[in-house]
Parts: sequence; structure tokens; C-alpha cells
Amino acid sequence: MNTDKSISGLIKNYKYGYSLEQAFYKSQEIYDREIENIFLKNWILAGHTSQIPNPGDYFLFEFDKESIIITRTKKDEVKALINVCRHRGSHVCLNKEGNTTAFTCPYHAWSYDLEGTLIAARIMSNDFEKSENGLHQAHVELVGGQIYISLAEEPLSLKGMQEDLADVFDQYGFDHMKLVEQRTYPIEANWKLAVENYQECYHCAPSHLDYAKIHALALAPKKFQPMKDKFLKENTSNIRTKASPYYFDLAKEGDEGYQYDRNPLLKGIKSGSRDGKPVAPLLGKVNEYGNGASEFSVGPTTYYLIYDDHMVGFRFLPTSLNTCIADVFWFVRGDAIKGKDYDLEELLWLWHVTILDDEKIIIDNKKGVDSHFYAPGKLSEMEMMEQHFLNWYLKALS
Amino acid sequence: MNTDKSISGLIKNYKYGYSLEQAFYKSQEIYDREIENIFLKNWILAGHTSQIPNPGDYFLFEFDKESIIITRTKKDEVKALINVCRHRGSHVCLNKEGNTTAFTCPYHAWSYDLEGTLIAARIMSNDFEKSENGLHQAHVELVGGQIYISLAEEPLSLKGMQEDLADVFDQYGFDHMKLVEQRTYPIEANWKLAVENYQECYHCAPSHLDYAKIHALALAPKKFQPMKDKFLKENTSNIRTKASPYYFDLAKEGDEGYQYDRNPLLKGIKSGSRDGKPVAPLLGKVNEYGNGASEFSVGPTTYYLIYDDHMVGFRFLPTSLNTCIADVFWFVRGDAIKGKDYDLEELLWLWHVTILDDEKIIIDNKKGVDSHFYAPGKLSEMEMMEQHFLNWYLKALS
Amino acid sequence: MNTDKSISGLIKNYKYGYSLEQAFYKSQEIYDREIENIFLKNWILAGHTSQIPNPGDYFLFEFDKESIIITRTKKDEVKALINVCRHRGSHVCLNKEGNTTAFTCPYHAWSYDLEGTLIAARIMSNDFEKSENGLHQAHVELVGGQIYISLAEEPLSLKGMQEDLADVFDQYGFDHMKLVEQRTYPIEANWKLAVENYQECYHCAPSHLDYAKIHALALAPKKFQPMKDKFLKENTSNIRTKASPYYFDLAKEGDEGYQYDRNPLLKGIKSGSRDGKPVAPLLGKVNEYGNGASEFSVGPTTYYLIYDDHMVGFRFLPTSLNTCIADVFWFVRGDAIKGKDYDLEELLWLWHVTILDDEKIIIDNKKGVDSHFYAPGKLSEMEMMEQHFLNWYLKALS
Repeated sequence: MNTDKSISGLIKNYKYGYSLEQAFYKSQEIYDREIENIFLKNWILAGHTSQIPNPGDYFLFEFDKESIIITRTKKDEVKALINVCRHRGSHVCLNKEGNTTAFTCPYHAWSYDLEGTLIAARIMSNDFEKSENGLHQAHVELVGGQIYISLAEEPLSLKGMQEDLADVFDQYGFDHMKLVEQRTYPIEANWKLAVENYQECYHCAPSHLDYAKIHALALAPKKFQPMKDKFLKENTSNIRTKASPYYFDLAKEGDEGYQYDRNPLLKGIKSGSRDGKPVAPLLGKVNEYGNGASEFSVGPTTYYLIYDDHMVGFRFLPTSLNTCIADVFWFVRGDAIKGKDYDLEELLWLWHVTILDDEKIIIDNKKGVDSHFYAPGKLSEMEMMEQHFLNWYLKALS
Repeated sequence: MNTDKSISGLIKNYKYGYSLEQAFYKSQEIYDREIENIFLKNWILAGHTSQIPNPGDYFLFEFDKESIIITRTKKDEVKALINVCRHRGSHVCLNKEGNTTAFTCPYHAWSYDLEGTLIAARIMSNDFEKSENGLHQAHVELVGGQIYISLAEEPLSLKGMQEDLADVFDQYGFDHMKLVEQRTYPIEANWKLAVENYQECYHCAPSHLDYAKIHALALAPKKFQPMKDKFLKENTSNIRTKASPYYFDLAKEGDEGYQYDRNPLLKGIKSGSRDGKPVAPLLGKVNEYGNGASEFSVGPTTYYLIYDDHMVGFRFLPTSLNTCIADVFWFVRGDAIKGKDYDLEELLWLWHVTILDDEKIIIDNKKGVDSHFYAPGKLSEMEMMEQHFLNWYLKALS
Repeated sequence: MNTDKSISGLIKNYKYGYSLEQAFYKSQEIYDREIENIFLKNWILAGHTSQIPNPGDYFLFEFDKESIIITRTKKDEVKALINVCRHRGSHVCLNKEGNTTAFTCPYHAWSYDLEGTLIAARIMSNDFEKSENGLHQAHVELVGGQIYISLAEEPLSLKGMQEDLADVFDQYGFDHMKLVEQRTYPIEANWKLAVENYQECYHCAPSHLDYAKIHALALAPKKFQPMKDKFLKENTSNIRTKASPYYFDLAKEGDEGYQYDRNPLLKGIKSGSRDGKPVAPLLGKVNEYGNGASEFSVGPTTYYLIYDDHMVGFRFLPTSLNTCIADVFWFVRGDAIKGKDYDLEELLWLWHVTILDDEKIIIDNKKGVDSHFYAPGKLSEMEMMEQHFLNWYLKALS
């Protein structure tokens, strides 16, 4: 039995092939370190450029104790401004979204332009330097219209991913998608229970009846693997099939982890919908409904599932030790017209019901993990991706 | 003044004859130790066999962070299964009660039979031993139909009590009672304030007008003692009067503490009811309304008050440092018919109003104990049972 | 960068001219020390004698974990009794206000007279001394009808203030005011953010449009100072204009800090009201509407704004680390008749809307201060009073 309850002791005594010790889900000290070592360091999906088409447009991206203004400048650049006044710390921007020429703090009227530069501060002494008091900023990187931010001083590199997956972004038309819906699902559990849930499809067959009618990934490996082999062999789609498994502990040194893979859907299924039929026009340059779907992920908290006709984004973020949120984003090609080219409710259906299932599962998981009688349990081979997450997580925490 | 604020310092500096220092009610560290040393060790009332008459019947018993499935097996045994999947810790059983042949985890479908044995786990490696992955279990002991559980590895003995009180259980017909109502009263206070409240009748006269019209125990000792002497002398009831004062620090080494005692009711009173009249048929082999009531307790959290015609059970359990629940159970003889032999509302009346009074008292007690100006106060001789509780508690915490 | 996160390290590394480090707003350890060093030591406004005109009248004054009974004795003295029974700590008085001859604990009926003396405790042993078990008491000092209490063993002196400001209390008729309304505004933020907000009028122009139409203090110093010079020069009011700036770190050794000052209102303004017109009869011996208003404060949490025709009191108190309350008291001369001499809604209007603005500002301030990216910012010259508060606060915490 592991009696060293320090963080380093807990990390050192982790048993490969098993789930985590309870302390990782209940310790405020560990949570605080996760914020420092993961959420203030790795790249996070902040939103999509279609949310801020015009200069001066902005929206707030918030998690844990942080609020960040994502805005488009007059030079048409995307900036991520920390929403904390450099005077006495008030939130500067209170609206969730809007259009403005400057952000003026509601407390003492310090005013910042769209670049975050302090442009007005009344009645300050002569030795006060406005140039040194601009809003703090996060790094921003765009992948097509996907806006990622990093709150690190020196962010991990996304360059390798951008080059490696340029063909994927081009084929799916990342530059020309639009966000048609974002929904936030609050979950009363530690964020890792939500991320771990997303990493494995061992639970798909028993828990997600609707997903399991669409995705081959819900099958046991001995059925899935031959189906995937056949899928790759007979493939006529122009979408890339070559995988890039650089996720979690498989990431290259200095790079943010990422993954790309293409997997079969069940026989006759064209898209992730109620009945497997298409729910929107083909994305980008996609040549046909190819009976597959692509997985794409960036960093530890952002995941995409790309069907031939729409893309679903997932983002998991902590709000406190015992609470997190799952955000889901739905994208279609930019010129698709609502009501004509796609029915919004049909588009949303599969992942809305699936995430509601997950919310319930994760909360019941949390209740048991809280028990004095919880102990790490053995993982299935269908939970290998979760194992990679755990390997990476324990290293990130160190 | 006590300046050593460590747990051992606080225990060492306890002043006999006084209430506890504030820290015992406000320290999370002390609370955590109470869970370990008391609630995961002593016997607790989990429920009654009349709740699970048939094989496959089950109900959940929950407190603090624990959930335990109380179930009847095909061999007609009662089992207490820890409701935590051995895989990744999810609650396995989500329904509060029901009937089943197996408990299948809603997350990854690991399945356990009524004995808690793991009978199915999909897609696990060859070295995985199902036989080593059954649900953890609590010890179970039945006293008549009363189901007690102990979460200890080596539970305290209940054998002495079973032998000592066999005549009591027989006279009252413990084997043939049925549970007709259970109510849960949440209280915004540390659990010890609720247990201490139950230990003493010093508050009965000022706080419980209805109780005080029924029970001689609400009287001052100098009035109560002669009344009890007379009651014992003139007694014609066949119910045992010999006391067994093995509670708290008076328990025998290695045994769970327990108490039996029989006390007079006020003149003309036959039962614990609105007007002192009977509210149900005589229990078991009881020969007459004997103008008395028996006290029976098991361990630190389970108490019974047995009138000649019905029994009321009380259970106090922590839900967090600052919250607890009082559960009240009402029992009548098993063949009594509702509406004919007893009126449920009349049966419940006295203890429903009395516990509501207590709930209020305990919360007002907590508010004052939270003050910087609270200090341990001197106990009355009517609080000697509370003194025994405190003696035991401080030793249990050590 | 400050890496010493101990309280003394944080205090030592405070940078003069800047706001506080985040830890001062988020550390439970610092909060606990604030309670000990400030709220259990400095004088606090408890209420007004017009709330307890007759012997036996009482009301409860409550903050953080404390409840104090403010009562008038048969000898016509005001007492502050700690509402914690000396037996097992229950709140003794449960009603928010009333009239009584004794306070009898609802738990075990220990009874205390209006002086706090224990007059009855049933069934206690012979060695129990009632005389040693009276309710704990706070020190009480009256300033006119204003009731201040100190929970310190040895309170700071208010004598200097009483002598210095005797003329002010006489002119405004402190002895003959009445409290006509008290409202409590809960704020989801650390109490210091509320007190700091009250210390500076740098935020008045951008945040308080209604206040800024009335008070010259909302102007920039370069406009305010000449206006104040002119106001003092042309003054014909009989209200004292000489300032007493003995607040916070400017208090005399051993004395509670206090302030008196008189400042101009904007041109044509007679009172703090919706339109600047009078809202009540002139206070005390005030000879005219003098186009000014006086500031008066006692200790760190009690502030008054005295218009010629009414007085508004402000009190800021913590309820937990992350919550506080602002209480606002409105006073008029004692013989003014509601509906005839003053319209209550008009009287309340300005400060009701102003405090609602502040509540919002303070909460948005708290949100930003919670961020990892908050850092102390440079104060404006309009925040000098806040600087005095911070100087005093850091010393008080030491």
C-alpha cells in the first residue's frame, strides 16, 4: 500500500495499467498544480474566428478563475487579452460578447485599445508609464479559423502540427467553416474524469447506444481492427487516412501533443446523425461520403470529431476542484445555409444526447471515486488512450 | 488556557465534566479522523430485513462519501456490498432500491452477482483475475430483523449483546417486526451535536413539551429516581427491567458498546403518542401496557426507544464536517395492518415533532459553538450519558 | 518577484503606492488573522439607541461567526452581551429584536438577566458558580445615540474623539437623531474590497453618475481643491469645518482612528438626494443648507456622510473570506415625522442606488483579483485614503 501521500510520492507510486489514486481527484494542492502546469501552459481552444468576423468584435473565454477577451484588432489580427485591469484588477470587459473600439474598465475608467495597450488612465502621477501597463496577453495561434491560446510565457510549438496536417485542414476546408452552435455542459466532477471519459470507447457500447449505432470504435478490438483494415484498403475518399499519433506522452519534445486518425463508421453510415444519413453539405474539398470520420486533437483539452459533412469540437475545462465544463462546438462549411442546407436540431442531436449520457456517467464515477473504498482498478486494452493521458498527466504534474 | 491545538493536545487537555473545545466541531482534520476511527469501524444500523423480503431485493445505505448496497442473496443471506466498481470506481447501483439478479456497472458494464462476485468484465487481458475483483463488502450482523454493518476489517464483537439481550429481543418480537416508515432529517451541524443532544434529557423539559408529557426522563433526578424505584417495584409487565449499561466507555474490551434499560412513563401513559394512549397492537409477547418504555442502543450512532406497542429507531450520521442527518425508523409488529391496527400519522406524531424541535435546537447550538467566544461549559448531572459519550469519543479519536 | 508567501513575508514585501497582493484576498489564514486582529479589536457600529428606547428592548448585531445582543438594562444602560450560552454554547436569544426581562437559553433553560448575569441554571452541582457564568460581554461606547462595541479585552480609546468632536455631535444633534431605515447589502467579495471601494472617489465619476451630480469629491483634485478653498472661505454655515484627519495609520497611539472633514457639494446642491434638494428638516442646530456635507468615521468599518438634513451611516463587515455585507443606516432628526417632514423613498434614493452600483463594481473587482494574472497596480493620487487604509491594515495584520 502506498503510504507516501506527497504529490511526488503519489506520482512515483502510480501503477501502470491502473486508474489513478483517489488523491489526484480530491487534493486542492494537486488541482492548483494542474492549473499551473497544464492549463496555464498547454494550448486551449478559445473559440472560432467566425465569432469575431469584424474588427472590434470580441467574446470572453473563461475557465477556472480566468477571463480572457478574444478580439479582432483593426489590423485584422486576433488577440487574447487577459481581462484584468492593471490598476486594481477589476474585470475590464463585462459583456460576454460585442463590438467595441476600446475596453474601458467600469471601475476607474482605465481604457485599453483592441491591442490591449493602455490608452487612458486619469489622474496618475507623472512617473506612471502607460506603456508598461497594457493588459497581459495570451499567445494566439490560428488553425484555419480555430483560435488556440496559450497562457505560458514560452508556449509549446504548434509548428510541426501545422505542417503535418496542412493537407487535412485543406481537405476539410478549415479556413471556410463556420461555428453554428456552442453548448456548455457543466459537470459536477473533477475535469480529469471528463477527459478520461473522452479517451476511451470501452464505455461506448454499454453507455452510448446512439453513438454505437454509428461508430465502429464502439466495437471490441477484435471486431474493430479487421473492419478498419478493410476500410483503409477499400477507401476511395480523398481524405487523408495516414495517422499522426503524437498525443500526450507521444508528443515530440517541445511540441504540443496532437493526434490525427481516420476510422470507419458502421456499414452504410454516412455521418454522425440520428440515422447515419448526411446532415449538411460535404465539408471543404471532401469528394464523397466515405463511411469514415476523423479524429483530431490539440493538447490535452481540445478534441474534434470530423464527419464528412460537419465537425464537432469538444473542450474540457476545470471550474474548480470538483466541477468542470464540457463545451461542444458544431461546425459546417461556411456557405451552408441554416434551414436549407442543414437542419440545426438534426445536426446537434447525436452529440447532445451523447454528452448528456457522459455527464451522468462521469458524475456517478465521481461519487464512487470519493469513497474510502475506491482503489485504482485495472484498465482494459480499450483504454490505452487513457493510459497515454495518464502517463502524460503524471509527467506534467511533476 | 489550552494552547496545544494538535489533535492529541486537544484530547489531552479536555476538562472532565465540561463540553468539548470548539476545534472538535470545526476541524476538517478531526472530522476525517472521526470517519476513519468511528464510522469505518463501529457498527451502524443500515436498515431492516422487511425492506428486502425476497432474494434480489436491495436498497442503498449512504452516509458521508459512502454508498453501500444492502441486498438479499439467492441463499437468503443479507450482504452489504460497497457500491464502488473495482474497475474505475463508478457507483455500480444507481437505484435507491429495487430487485435484480446482478449489479451491472453503468459505465463499462462490469457485472457483479448478488454476492458481490465479479461475473463479467469485457475485453480484459488474460492476466486479469475476476475472482480478485469482487465488490468490497462490509460485515453484516442481524439482530432480529435489524441489519447492522461494520466497515472495519476486524469488527467489534456483538456476541455478548446478542446473548445478554436475547430475552429482550424475544419479548419484543424483534424477529417479527416490520418497518412502516423511515424519515430523514437533515441537520446543518456537526454530527456530534446531534448525538450529544440525544444523550441527555436535561433539555427535554424546556425544549420538548410533548415528550415531557409522556416520559418521566424529562424530570429532574430527584423526582425521577423515586418514580423509577416505584415503577420497578410495582412492575407487572413481562418485559425485562434489568439494565445493561455497556455503552460508550463502559463497553467491554473488544465489544461494541450497547445499552438496555427500562424507564417509567408518566402516570397513566401507555405509549409514546399524542395523548399517551396506544397507537398499535402490543409488540411480540408483551403482556400489557406496562407504563414504561425501554432504551436500547448499539454502537455510537444507533438508538431505539421501545414502547409496548411500537419501536422507534434513531440513527445519526455525518454527511460533512458541518452537516449530518438524523434518520428515524418506526416499527410495529409484523402482522399489524395499516388503517386497521394502527393509524400511521398518530404513530409518527410524537417523534416527528420532537425531532423537528431537536433539529432547531442543534442548529442554534452550532451557531454559538462557532463563535470565538464559545468555551467548554460545565455539564449537569442530567448530562452524565453525554459525559460517557465524550469519554469514549476522545479515546476513539486517539 | 515576491516568493515569500508567509503572512509576514507578504506584509514585508508590500510595495507602497500599489494595491495588495492577491493572497490578502484569498488566504483563509489571513482572513482568520483579520478577525482576531481587527474585528475582535477595533470599535464597530452595532446600531442606534433609537432601536432600543425602553428597558428590556434588544436587537441582535451579527457578523462573521458572532452574534451579540444589544440591550437596554433596567438601569437604562446599553449592554452588548455575547449570544453564546455559557453551558454548551447555544445561541441564547433567537429573535432578531424584541423586549424581554431575561434571556433564557432555548436548549437547557439557563437564564440570564439584562445585565448578562446568570440567574438560573437547573440541576447543577453544588460547586457550580452562577456568578462566574454570566454571558461574555463587549465594551460599549455611545456617541450620541450611536452604539459602538469593541470585542477586545482592552479596547482602544475613543476619549480623544469624543472630546475633539463634541461640537460636531452637538451641532448635528447626534443625541436627538432617529434611525429611520437600515438596509443590508450582501456582497460576494472579500470585505477589504468593499472598504477600499469606500476609501476613494477615483471611481465616483465613472461609476456613480448620481453621486457625481451632487458631490464635488467626484471631481479631479485640480478642480476639487480650488472649489473646496472657495467653499471654506465663503462658508456661512455654523457646522464645523476644521478637519480631524486621525484615520487609519494617522490615529494617535492607543486611540481608535477617526476622521472628520467637511467638503463642498456641487453648485446649488443642498442635500444628498435625487435632485439635490432637501429631503428632511435641518439636523440639530444646523443653521442653513450650507452646500456642504461632512465625513465622519470611527475605526476601520464605520463611516458617516452627514448632509445638513440627514445622515447616512455605512458599515462593512465580513461574513466569510469571500463574502461581506454593507449595512446602510439612514438618520433624521428625532422629531421629524414620516410622510410629513420627509418622504422615506426620496431620503433613501441616492445611497440605495449608489451602493447597488458599488456592489456590482466590487464583485467585478473580485473576479479579476482572483485571476493568476492579477498583480498589484499603481494607485492614483485620488486613492490616498485607500493608501492610509492599506498602511494601517498591514500593520494591524502584523
